[in-house]
Amino acid sequence: MDKVRIGVIGAGRIGKIHVDNLRRLQQAEVVAISDLYADAELEEWAQEREIPIVTADSNAIIHHPDIDAVFICSSTDSHVPLIKSAARSGKHIFCEKPISMDILQTEEALEEVRRAGVKLQVGFNRRFDHNFRRVREHVESGAIGDVHLIKITSRDPSPPPESYIAVSGGIFMDMMIHDFDMARYLSGSEVEEVFAYGGVLVDPVFAKYEDVDTAVVTLRFTNGALGVIDCSRQAAYGYDQRAEAFGTLGAASADNDHANTVALSTSKGVQGDKPLHFFLERYNEAYVLETQQFVDCVLSGNSVPVNGEDGWQAERIARAAKLSLRERRIVKLSELDVTGSIQAGNEGR
Amino acid sequence: MDKVRIGVIGAGRIGKIHVDNLRRLQQAEVVAISDLYADAELEEWAQEREIPIVTADSNAIIHHPDIDAVFICSSTDSHVPLIKSAARSGKHIFCEKPISMDILQTEEALEEVRRAGVKLQVGFNRRFDHNFRRVREHVESGAIGDVHLIKITSRDPSPPPESYIAVSGGIFMDMMIHDFDMARYLSGSEVEEVFAYGGVLVDPVFAKYEDVDTAVVTLRFTNGALGVIDCSRQAAYGYDQRAEAFGTLGAASADNDHANTVALSTSKGVQGDKPLHFFLERYNEAYVLETQQFVDCVLSGNSVPVNGEDGWQAERIARAAKLSLRERRIVKLSELDVTGSIQAGNEGR
Amino acid sequence: MDKVRIGVIGAGRIGKIHVDNLRRLQQAEVVAISDLYADAELEEWAQEREIPIVTADSNAIIHHPDIDAVFICSSTDSHVPLIKSAARSGKHIFCEKPISMDILQTEEALEEVRRAGVKLQVGFNRRFDHNFRRVREHVESGAIGDVHLIKITSRDPSPPPESYIAVSGGIFMDMMIHDFDMARYLSGSEVEEVFAYGGVLVDPVFAKYEDVDTAVVTLRFTNGALGVIDCSRQAAYGYDQRAEAFGTLGAASADNDHANTVALSTSKGVQGDKPLHFFLERYNEAYVLETQQFVDCVLSGNSVPVNGEDGWQAERIARAAKLSLRERRIVKLSELDVTGSIQAGNEGR
Amino acid sequence: MDKVRIGVIGAGRIGKIHVDNLRRLQQAEVVAISDLYADAELEEWAQEREIPIVTADSNAIIHHPDIDAVFICSSTDSHVPLIKSAARSGKHIFCEKPISMDILQTEEALEEVRRAGVKLQVGFNRRFDHNFRRVREHVESGAIGDVHLIKITSRDPSPPPESYIAVSGGIFMDMMIHDFDMARYLSGSEVEEVFAYGGVLVDPVFAKYEDVDTAVVTLRFTNGALGVIDCSRQAAYGYDQRAEAFGTLGAASADNDHANTVALSTSKGVQGDKPLHFFLERYNEAYVLETQQFVDCVLSGNSVPVNGEDGWQAERIARAAKLSLRERRIVKLSELDVTGSIQAGNEGR
Repeated sequence: MDKVRIGVIGAGRIGKIHVDNLRRLQQAEVVAISDLYADAELEEWAQEREIPIVTADSNAIIHHPDIDAVFICSSTDSHVPLIKSAARSGKHIFCEKPISMDILQTEEALEEVRRAGVKLQVGFNRRFDHNFRRVREHVESGAIGDVHLIKITSRDPSPPPESYIAVSGGIFMDMMIHDFDMARYLSGSEVEEVFAYGGVLVDPVFAKYEDVDTAVVTLRFTNGALGVIDCSRQAAYGYDQRAEAFGTLGAASADNDHANTVALSTSKGVQGDKPLHFFLERYNEAYVLETQQFVDCVLSGNSVPVNGEDGWQAERIARAAKLSLRERRIVKLSELDVTGSIQAGNEGR
Repeated sequence: MDKVRIGVIGAGRIGKIHVDNLRRLQQAEVVAISDLYADAELEEWAQEREIPIVTADSNAIIHHPDIDAVFICSSTDSHVPLIKSAARSGKHIFCEKPISMDILQTEEALEEVRRAGVKLQVGFNRRFDHNFRRVREHVESGAIGDVHLIKITSRDPSPPPESYIAVSGGIFMDMMIHDFDMARYLSGSEVEEVFAYGGVLVDPVFAKYEDVDTAVVTLRFTNGALGVIDCSRQAAYGYDQRAEAFGTLGAASADNDHANTVALSTSKGVQGDKPLHFFLERYNEAYVLETQQFVDCVLSGNSVPVNGEDGWQAERIARAAKLSLRERRIVKLSELDVTGSIQAGNEGR
Repeated sequence: MDKVRIGVIGAGRIGKIHVDNLRRLQQAEVVAISDLYADAELEEWAQEREIPIVTADSNAIIHHPDIDAVFICSSTDSHVPLIKSAARSGKHIFCEKPISMDILQTEEALEEVRRAGVKLQVGFNRRFDHNFRRVREHVESGAIGDVHLIKITSRDPSPPPESYIAVSGGIFMDMMIHDFDMARYLSGSEVEEVFAYGGVLVDPVFAKYEDVDTAVVTLRFTNGALGVIDCSRQAAYGYDQRAEAFGTLGAASADNDHANTVALSTSKGVQGDKPLHFFLERYNEAYVLETQQFVDCVLSGNSVPVNGEDGWQAERIARAAKLSLRERRIVKLSELDVTGSIQAGNEGR
Repeated sequence: MDKVRIGVIGAGRIGKIHVDNLRRLQQAEVVAISDLYADAELEEWAQEREIPIVTADSNAIIHHPDIDAVFICSSTDSHVPLIKSAARSGKHIFCEKPISMDILQTEEALEEVRRAGVKLQVGFNRRFDHNFRRVREHVESGAIGDVHLIKITSRDPSPPPESYIAVSGGIFMDMMIHDFDMARYLSGSEVEEVFAYGGVLVDPVFAKYEDVDTAVVTLRFTNGALGVIDCSRQAAYGYDQRAEAFGTLGAASADNDHANTVALSTSKGVQGDKPLHFFLERYNEAYVLETQQFVDCVLSGNSVPVNGEDGWQAERIARAAKLSLRERRIVKLSELDVTGSIQAGNEGR
């Protein structure tokens, strides 16, 4: 194989971004796109991009003999059945996060992936961000010594619409799942226990769905280090995405990205522009890199950089956080394993 | 009165700093200093500063008719008896933090102060820091809207000797008490409940005294806002003292102070010098301001900027944090009030 | 016309970059590329990009009936004849800087462009940089009041090879011509006189070609403001591209861009990564924007953002600077106009 | 001698600052102050500081047998006669800048100092600034390699009153003399030639005195490096004092000091407070250090850190700059030496 032929399932915002990023890669070719609501507009959009197949039926992609890999960008509840079908059909899989909102289902999907021996990469795009990657490098190189604390700040510019809040799975599963993965990525360690704390400070609508809009989650990693993540559904100044790793020899801190470096000094003070406002702007480069690495891994047979277990672990933390918030107590991740089928394995190599 | 005549009790490091700062004020005069270990060296030191009275007996200061106010800078266990005597003797009082390690004793001392009608200021010097004061101003002016989250980072350059650890009262009472006060100061709200989390990551010696050296404390304020403080007994790069207030309209963040603004750009990167390393260097100006405001309040009769209740509240949070760490659960500050005598009053005006 | 069909002349580094940037635009189509050394490798490169015509003969592009516009990316000495032919052939023109090293020739080329009524845009890509554009916006909006001083720092990571130095036209024409254009762009004013000062500090080879490798050029604008540009052929820490505009109400300063925002704090200090090292990295976005705007102007008929007069003015400043350096005196730009044919006109609309 | 007894001549703003700084030194004692306008107010001021002698006659200080050193803080035209008298009377001398506005007179004063063998320190306080000292250290340690360029930005918050402009000696002698000294200090080299350029952009009143309010001065050092200084009498955002040294291995850049490190992020952007506004605020620490080092040198017999030759060299650069501006040409400092008596010697050790 010298080119990966790809079918994209789900033509929403993120699906379309993946298409445009994949088209810039020499070694990838988007040959099909499906969406439940495939219409003339989507056909035109696909035509401009020279994508021959446009369909409302994801099976047409999953069972197409000339397709090597699928990007699953449809709604979360469709992820597990699609992963299972795609795996059985021998397709490599890139799936948006979370894999599912039910860990047992996630485990079933990963089991199928393992059995089929296909690759599964989960869309934790932030691991590919230039800033967070640099913090990780400083941890990995030993520049900060043994890690004592991981701190993450994660604030969205503004909350989603109520219709989305209702089905989002809550702040932990929908938003902080990225931060839980980041905590594992930066520390290089698994999470042992979680304490979640939160409030409804942005908009009372969150209370309606037993959700919070502002949260602080404290973690203990298996290597003894601590972690703390603060999260908000609304930041007036834009998208706030920072992280810090602190250890025996020092600290590595990632600040926000800004639209420019210009400082305006006047009698009122020194003024700069806001951080990059939108996740697509901030993580633009990261989205490109994650698809590129997925394509490289499919071609080379190497392990994917973010696999099924990474998805599973983040979901477990999210679930533990949800339980912790409700019961106002520390929750050990091992509590979730009573039914526990999966062992941290090598699914989604 | 056009000048406040002051006696300083305790000639350790902090006592001497207060003397030197007070001597720069036109409206203050240090007329006496006492120390259990008053010796020839202290006499010489005092002589150079034209302080007429040097004594081993704090009573000589407390009952001296020409003394208007005392600075209590002796060991923590002596604070309560000294406050009581000084109050009964009609002296205004500046007392280092914490007032005591036993809230009931603290309450008794404050009761005495209230009865005597003297002023009591507690040495929470960080409130006078140029950076934190500016964050507070941004909160107070409404620039960030309603506060949702207060974040504080507090890391010492290196841990104290074991002899001190043994009697320090633990990380919450000894070190984070400053941060608990800062949380109240920045938010303008009281703390309702606390969850403390920690580990022994810097030096196993802390475990010996049932203490931790790295801690993350999460708070809920009575106004609904959240707070989170991370603390370490050791930071390889020096003294790390930052704070952030986040609200509906924005965020105000205080970074560290540095020795200079110079950036050295070479083939290796861009290098700056470390943050100011030592608390006396970083809070030099703050120590001057706190003594100046105390002196001003004694002369004018105005309320002191940090009073006995502030000391008491911080101690309660510290005690709740200690309990939370031990019992691995959220502790409400109201749990401490079963024996409760004091009501948030106006002691130490 | 709903799409601009483009032929690119010169398939060196910058020519290839323009091709890749143009391919990302919906409204542009690269239909031909020519290079004196067109070979199998270039053919393959073009084929991958679906460019049907690959030729060694630029005339095949200039006279092709289906081509609307040409990008002139060949060596500087070919610019003038190519502009003339292309203009006569009715093609819109994007030409790399400088138009030529001989102002009379530049004037002749512009005359031809004017006569033909085609568009001519000059490749001053830095005007499209996010940082410099923001400084310009602060000047234009009146945020800094009347401009008193424009300061520009322009340092390359390392000097070009001797073969290039020999034909580069010298530091003013080859490198600082960008800065001369930037000075005009930021100030919104023309340059009246120039004083150039320099030295051979990086590499003695520059002396061999009567060139300098380090220069400071001082300017006076017609509106009375001053300007100063410092320039070096070598900066150990990478590409140094900063600018500041200072006026009655304040200053706007653009700092360098960096690869990431991470600060590593250790016992040695606080370390960040170097500025973006290479011009293609730093001005990546700017190159995209300049081609996009050219295409938009061709389609809409609007004026191009950097026209022939902008090219001509920068060349005049470069020439005056060269004279100033040699004669160690202030040179007025009006001195260059004795032979003067052109009047600041509207060539290259 | 274990204490330096000092008389201060001139009780204006700077004289009073020196008194307050000297009083904080253990090894200095201010025993006298003189001022042409010595009045009851000054007497009270001196009394509060326990300065026994207050006089209108500087001779009472210069010839007082118990005085070891004098601080000359009176108007510039009095400096030379006072230096001569003080030297003849065997007093060590600290003199504010400039020594005089007439190089021949300065040379005469230095000759007298040399003959008397007393110390003379000139008040170039900025050499003691934490930022500029750090840049110098980076140059001295070889961290930036061989120096290629020194850049200095020097902007006052607002222009002095017309009465002062009339007698100031002009922007070069009054204001930029500090920057000329800084250029020598940072580069560690002498200035060979100067080109000065300027304009009246802030206030037309400067033109009345053949002065400019905005200037750019370019220098060549004897070691081949270049220098450039930009200067303005008015900066809306406060006091702008920056410097950069650039060399073969990198660059060291000093930014401004700010009142605090707080960033306020809102929907409008990220806002910080202005740079420290006033020279006394910015150079507070530097003023303390320069007097301390003078006192140390008097006691130890070591060389003073800024001596008479430093004063003389800066005056020569200022004079050359003035000539350059008037004649619109490069001026070599050697042109000033026709009458030349002094050789760079060791006056004012």
